[in-house]
Amino acid sequence: MTGTTQPPRATVVSGGVGAARFLRGLVDVVPAADVCAVVNTGDDTVLHGLSISPDLDTITYTLAGAIDPERGWGLAGETWAAMDALGRYASVRPRGSTAAPTWFNLGDRDLATHCYRTARLAEGATLTEVTSEITAAWGLDVRLLPMTDAPLRTIVSVVGHGEVEFQEYFVRLHHDVPIDGVRFAHDSAPLTDDALAALGDGGVVVIAPSNPIVSIGPIRALSGVDDLLAGRRESVVAISPIVGGAALKGPADRMLAELGHPSSVVGVAALYAPIAGTLVIDHADAALAPEVEAAGMRAVVTSTVMSMPGVAADLARATLAAAR
Amino acid sequence: MTGTTQPPRATVVSGGVGAARFLRGLVDVVPAADVCAVVNTGDDTVLHGLSISPDLDTITYTLAGAIDPERGWGLAGETWAAMDALGRYASVRPRGSTAAPTWFNLGDRDLATHCYRTARLAEGATLTEVTSEITAAWGLDVRLLPMTDAPLRTIVSVVGHGEVEFQEYFVRLHHDVPIDGVRFAHDSAPLTDDALAALGDGGVVVIAPSNPIVSIGPIRALSGVDDLLAGRRESVVAISPIVGGAALKGPADRMLAELGHPSSVVGVAALYAPIAGTLVIDHADAALAPEVEAAGMRAVVTSTVMSMPGVAADLARATLAAAR
Repeated sequence: MTGTTQPPRATVVSGGVGAARFLRGLVDVVPAADVCAVVNTGDDTVLHGLSISPDLDTITYTLAGAIDPERGWGLAGETWAAMDALGRYASVRPRGSTAAPTWFNLGDRDLATHCYRTARLAEGATLTEVTSEITAAWGLDVRLLPMTDAPLRTIVSVVGHGEVEFQEYFVRLHHDVPIDGVRFAHDSAPLTDDALAALGDGGVVVIAPSNPIVSIGPIRALSGVDDLLAGRRESVVAISPIVGGAALKGPADRMLAELGHPSSVVGVAALYAPIAGTLVIDHADAALAPEVEAAGMRAVVTSTVMSMPGVAADLARATLAAAR
Repeated sequence: MTGTTQPPRATVVSGGVGAARFLRGLVDVVPAADVCAVVNTGDDTVLHGLSISPDLDTITYTLAGAIDPERGWGLAGETWAAMDALGRYASVRPRGSTAAPTWFNLGDRDLATHCYRTARLAEGATLTEVTSEITAAWGLDVRLLPMTDAPLRTIVSVVGHGEVEFQEYFVRLHHDVPIDGVRFAHDSAPLTDDALAALGDGGVVVIAPSNPIVSIGPIRALSGVDDLLAGRRESVVAISPIVGGAALKGPADRMLAELGHPSSVVGVAALYAPIAGTLVIDHADAALAPEVEAAGMRAVVTSTVMSMPGVAADLARATLAAAR
């Protein structure tokens, strides 16, 4: 026993951009080798025959310092020659074909990641194995674990439009259309053994400030996850992705409202109360702390907007402290 | 009936670069809509999960005026960002994996062609259909017909190395290793109905100056092709890819010798005599014309080296004239 307090190991239940920014701060506080992320793959898709895992790649590129900081996805300094050239084929594809989609931009260097992933999956590797190789190639010490090695797809029901795959809603329709439902195809997909071990680990579990419906939702949809977290909820801390009633990025606020939840930290608390003991909320929402507590979660107030340098590390410290 | 002589329709049995250059001259002589190419797909491969058809693409890009004139393959003005980025993953692939091959270069804009082909094949389109769409996208009037819609692969037996797929021999091993055999995997693959009709058409059939073993050979390996051509051999004209005992491009000369054939127009004549009545040879080989005739083919002597402008069109005129 030493006199200094060791930071706990941490497993972060993760979506894409918000989780990536939190993880970047977390590794300033906890040794990267003690950090694990269980990552949503419900957004994964196949385009041009290539297997694409947006959340895994956003976290990888962010932790490698290679993310495009303005877009929040893809690589900095990227070029777009392949996608530009694809436009030629969009004009000749037959009616009903979805080949040559030009609404989903893939940079030239980013394509290499999808090419490698696709080739390895075709060789029989699991997504967990391929992800481990990709993160090694980028020199990461954080363990990134896909939530499942099976195909699970987030399906969004768009009002007046019917059901579409997540990327169609998010990218092609710019997520500015009202929805009336979300479901997960093949939700019998199993959590991987590695992810199961990480979530059952003796450290802290953090639910990242990601979209509760379509980023954290798919992970919770896997059999046993909610039960596992409920059984250890005192060491599970969630960070609200909603600040001042709005999502910092993406459609989480509108999705919550459209699906009948309050678009506020109180709505987030109601969703997470069964599986997490604590909700970290921003100073902007301090007045709602009593309502969070009434919804069944302890409220911790701090700065959660990670647009400024240093905020993410401070947020990570506050989050880990809240779990003790 | 008019007093002018209409050029005949022409079907060209085609490999890659040599066939592409001949076709570019042919369309100066025959309306492009009357030209059809039945194209080798034995070189086709899947890399990075993408379906690649080198000979079809070389012809398409050449006829579109978009080919890189120095390399003879790929697009002019191409960039290589994706392949450069793939190098990162080559260093982490596990032993035994063939993912992230960096020996096969695919340009960024070229990748778009493979992405489109792969996506359409995954949708259930045939290679014939996809090729028709790709050539339409490039504005071609020539009909390019893959020899088969089934997977047929050229397998090369390399001395001291064993059997490898064609692209491994041709690109990774730089075709500078001795071989002792060539075979075609799945040679029960059927000629397509479109290719069958084109080869049985009332016009002229030209065997392009392509490698007799690994470009024309796979087409001849399909059931019925040799019989069909033998039955109409007087209207079938072959152009020798061997000039002065050497291949203008690629390993045809060494392959012929290594497989026990004379590396000369006489060796070519012996291979083609059963299926073609005439062999077009270069002035450099004029002295061998009697030996070509002794091997069973009428010899026509003209300029066949298509490196100079205009030669290809003159060669096309001489070839068509030889078929009458």
